[in-house]
Amino acid sequence: MKLATYKDGSRDGQLVVVSRDLSTAHFANGIATRLQQVLDDWNFLSPQLHDLSITLNHGKARHAFPFDPAMCMAPLPRAYQWADGSAYLNHVELVRKARGAEVPQSFYGDPLMYQGGSDDFLGACDDAVFASTDWGIDFESEVAVITGDVPIGATPAQALEGVRLLMLANDWSLRNLIPDELAKGFGFVQSKPATAFSPVAVTPDELGDAWQGGKVHLTLQSTWNGRKVGQCEAGPEMTFHFGQLIAHLAKTRQVRAGSIVGSGTVSNKDWAKGYSCIAERRAIETIEHGAPKTEFMQFGDTIRIEMKGRDGLSLFGAIEQTVTDPG
Amino acid sequence: MKLATYKDGSRDGQLVVVSRDLSTAHFANGIATRLQQVLDDWNFLSPQLHDLSITLNHGKARHAFPFDPAMCMAPLPRAYQWADGSAYLNHVELVRKARGAEVPQSFYGDPLMYQGGSDDFLGACDDAVFASTDWGIDFESEVAVITGDVPIGATPAQALEGVRLLMLANDWSLRNLIPDELAKGFGFVQSKPATAFSPVAVTPDELGDAWQGGKVHLTLQSTWNGRKVGQCEAGPEMTFHFGQLIAHLAKTRQVRAGSIVGSGTVSNKDWAKGYSCIAERRAIETIEHGAPKTEFMQFGDTIRIEMKGRDGLSLFGAIEQTVTDPG
Repeated sequence: MKLATYKDGSRDGQLVVVSRDLSTAHFANGIATRLQQVLDDWNFLSPQLHDLSITLNHGKARHAFPFDPAMCMAPLPRAYQWADGSAYLNHVELVRKARGAEVPQSFYGDPLMYQGGSDDFLGACDDAVFASTDWGIDFESEVAVITGDVPIGATPAQALEGVRLLMLANDWSLRNLIPDELAKGFGFVQSKPATAFSPVAVTPDELGDAWQGGKVHLTLQSTWNGRKVGQCEAGPEMTFHFGQLIAHLAKTRQVRAGSIVGSGTVSNKDWAKGYSCIAERRAIETIEHGAPKTEFMQFGDTIRIEMKGRDGLSLFGAIEQTVTDPG
Repeated sequence: MKLATYKDGSRDGQLVVVSRDLSTAHFANGIATRLQQVLDDWNFLSPQLHDLSITLNHGKARHAFPFDPAMCMAPLPRAYQWADGSAYLNHVELVRKARGAEVPQSFYGDPLMYQGGSDDFLGACDDAVFASTDWGIDFESEVAVITGDVPIGATPAQALEGVRLLMLANDWSLRNLIPDELAKGFGFVQSKPATAFSPVAVTPDELGDAWQGGKVHLTLQSTWNGRKVGQCEAGPEMTFHFGQLIAHLAKTRQVRAGSIVGSGTVSNKDWAKGYSCIAERRAIETIEHGAPKTEFMQFGDTIRIEMKGRDGLSLFGAIEQTVTDPG
């Protein structure tokens, strides 16, 4: 099933069930009003949503209405946890190579992960507002999961069972603020502003056999100012699958329902696949020509992030944002 | 007023108003069931809680009952944000000096802050469960605030107006896991397990003139295995006040209601005041004798963290936890 959260002026919005083809939606009122509620009580509430989803997909839901991604908040407009991995080591290798640094051997066994702010997410079509382009505005196209409760010390296999929903993320990054925060060692606060998520979050069964071994075996498309800049395969080159990422997070603490875990920038060794963030393009330019050429984003720039299923239909709907000044 | 969250088997517990002397409490049912609700709608709900608080303090609340800190979850049992500063530079200076490193000059103008997990907090009297003492189990006694909505780009003065409630925190730290995570630069995931908070959260007016300039001018007591090890002044040596910490967090993103911001380990230049975490004691031992002597915590160890008001009464109730193995 596919779930979204409609804007209604409240902080948590209104839960809707969306049809598989993203054409229609139906309020989940009678079942639950907010997605967090469903995650808190998944075994009781999700079967009811699933029934509504079947009715909707058959065109038989009485109060269905046309689905509008612009009406969407993030599926979880605010969450109790957002932990973003860096599971595509190729990305790390490129960025390090560009600055003449080695990738420590430990990075291949122990995932990089940062704890992000989760109090204020952006909807898929919300403007991304930044005070200055001097900050080095960049998108990052990612896959993310929402978990149920995962016990402390869970194995990767156990942790993988905790995956409830999948979605796409645009992990906005302010590249020129990153070096100072990296140097401090305490992670990212100012250099990682509000993250945006796809219009809908979907249960793993919606992916069919494209969801395998804790990875999404599909192509993530990134389109910057109307130009397709990334067609990256999210599956084979993911060094750590989602079960491993969640288990990393759960090593010393419980992971509770509604935690969002991200894959990090999707990245492929084959440069012809393009890029899922500008920083990677600039790293390649530096490796090839000694200096970056492509500038970061300007006010008015647009970014579209989307993933199609094996049937060619948009799986999560598209993230489509415009970079804007505070006005 | 003083607020607490009682355990009732649910994820968010039941909001109670607690009397100033911490002797009695009253369910806030008719007004709000959860603290996050109140933070989401502060201007409407907090005056109603304030009225109940006055009635309770006058001994006139009809259904008052004896207050039991052991029944408390964290005031916010889970939150949308937990950002912990490191506002007492003396702590940073000591830890660095012990390992022969300088404090970069930038640290005096730009606060250190890490984003912590906020999906699963501990109540004040909950056991702190760890799989192994090899991890280097340590307490950190801190002051923390809960904010309302703070706009992006807020000045420190504006940010300070966003402080709704104050409480104490025990920011559990796994010292032997920290060096590897620090080296990665992405902040703390495994080395910062679930944080505990004091039984009650209080509005700033409860502190009288001890709340001044965004700092708490009172003594934070830490008692380890029954021995008073810290009597640290939380006010004068706080390099960054809470308005500055919140403004740091709000530079590139909105800070939404229910965000928790911590002070970091309270620390004084006068070593006679003792310590608010064992790591600091070990740093001093290293500076004095070339090596640390005091071991980190063992299973069965207890830690009590408390702060008394100018009237000598416990302001937030005590955090009283026992370190235990998973059994």
